[in-house]
Amino acid sequence: MLDSFPLPDSQHRFVSGEPFSHAEREAVYRAIFTRRDVRGQFLPDAIPDETLLRVLTAAHHAPSVGFMQPWNFVVVRDPARKRRIAEIFARANEEAAMMFPEEKRTLYRSLKLEGITTAPVNICVTCDRNRAGPVVLGATHMADMDLFSSVCAVQNLWLAARAEGIGVGWVSILNETEVKSALGIPEEIRLVAYLCIGKVSGLHASPELEQRGWRQRVSIADVVFDDYWGGVSSLVSKHQTRSVDVTPWLIDPLDSECSGPT
Amino acid sequence: MLDSFPLPDSQHRFVSGEPFSHAEREAVYRAIFTRRDVRGQFLPDAIPDETLLRVLTAAHHAPSVGFMQPWNFVVVRDPARKRRIAEIFARANEEAAMMFPEEKRTLYRSLKLEGITTAPVNICVTCDRNRAGPVVLGATHMADMDLFSSVCAVQNLWLAARAEGIGVGWVSILNETEVKSALGIPEEIRLVAYLCIGKVSGLHASPELEQRGWRQRVSIADVVFDDYWGGVSSLVSKHQTRSVDVTPWLIDPLDSECSGPT
Repeated sequence: MLDSFPLPDSQHRFVSGEPFSHAEREAVYRAIFTRRDVRGQFLPDAIPDETLLRVLTAAHHAPSVGFMQPWNFVVVRDPARKRRIAEIFARANEEAAMMFPEEKRTLYRSLKLEGITTAPVNICVTCDRNRAGPVVLGATHMADMDLFSSVCAVQNLWLAARAEGIGVGWVSILNETEVKSALGIPEEIRLVAYLCIGKVSGLHASPELEQRGWRQRVSIADVVFDDYWGGVSSLVSKHQTRSVDVTPWLIDPLDSECSGPT
Repeated sequence: MLDSFPLPDSQHRFVSGEPFSHAEREAVYRAIFTRRDVRGQFLPDAIPDETLLRVLTAAHHAPSVGFMQPWNFVVVRDPARKRRIAEIFARANEEAAMMFPEEKRTLYRSLKLEGITTAPVNICVTCDRNRAGPVVLGATHMADMDLFSSVCAVQNLWLAARAEGIGVGWVSILNETEVKSALGIPEEIRLVAYLCIGKVSGLHASPELEQRGWRQRVSIADVVFDDYWGGVSSLVSKHQTRSVDVTPWLIDPLDSECSGPT
């Protein structure tokens, strides 16, 4: 099943220093820059087992603190369980709407923020904080490193899925205790991410929340510093002189059925 | 500077449904499966500005809760500041060694766990929890989503760096308050990751902690469940019947200077 993407063989101590070709590097950036949080574009088509296994294997090869590998992946396809999660979302989302100032509430309620029942597959990503015993190499001084490891697994999965033509949406408006109860997850295990996964009719060219006017992309000039907090970056001053072009894989319009936000 | 990897243009609502070619997909998996946490293989060679800017731009295009983009990247090249961080590591690492049972302490102390002063560039990745105001879309019920967003940025950076032939090492054995003080980072900003970055003499074919006998790779059969916690996965039962091959980019031995662990 993994014929085309065999895993590293640990008998070899070092990988080759062979650099990525220009085309290979471009492919990695394509996955990164066109990855989207999908909510409304899921198709009901089944995901082939081998595809799902490849993206899970990619997740399982994320970095983890002390090589702890604290993650589990609960692959939810049972419609009844998905409906239960959707109900948990609906309750939380109504609570969430009420937390926003009144002037933002209408826009908030108009946003589609999950595809739990329309996506053919959901994956719940967890963190077992006790997997490596009470003291974990690398987590002695930063206590959240185990949770962060599971997050790295999510991002690996997301980029692998993008390369497979599979969309991923991360649903975080959920009560952790209720989700764990719905999936039989033990109390001591942490919920890290609840992902909706499936083939898509298309992907937004820029984040949906940007297109809908919720928030804008921050300038990279505001997030990169040199040497200390607030240090003006020489990298960024060069960057600001450049215009942004469109790549070939961004120019094809999608079919009309998904031309509007959902 | 970004000529070869232009960014998405938000005037286009949807990206093309054009699938990744087999070669593009393989490139993404190559980055994921051969990414390593680098500690001992850094070369002193400078990283070209355009390369550094590309990997930072990849980080800046990570998913973030409510499109909050809570990250900053402090790019540290000043030797004096790197030495100060190395001292913070040394103190924390001695504390850490004492936390392990005596029988693991010798092995722990023999592991090289950072390349702070040997890597030409360090990048401190942070999270500004107040960037989007007191209520953040998507973070109303899972309070760590902002930290998790910054972690996604780290993983994007790591994979982009892999594609650029740049090694990354995540140093987490650090006292957060001391690091923030060394870099002038305000008290209310959280430290998420301290990364060592540079060209490398080679990469381990499998995680160094596995090669050194600290911990072994968990079987994917133990981390994937179907529908509920503990549910035996049909995906995994198929996987277990497959052997693992070696890909062409894993068979070249490296030059002798880095044939042993450091």
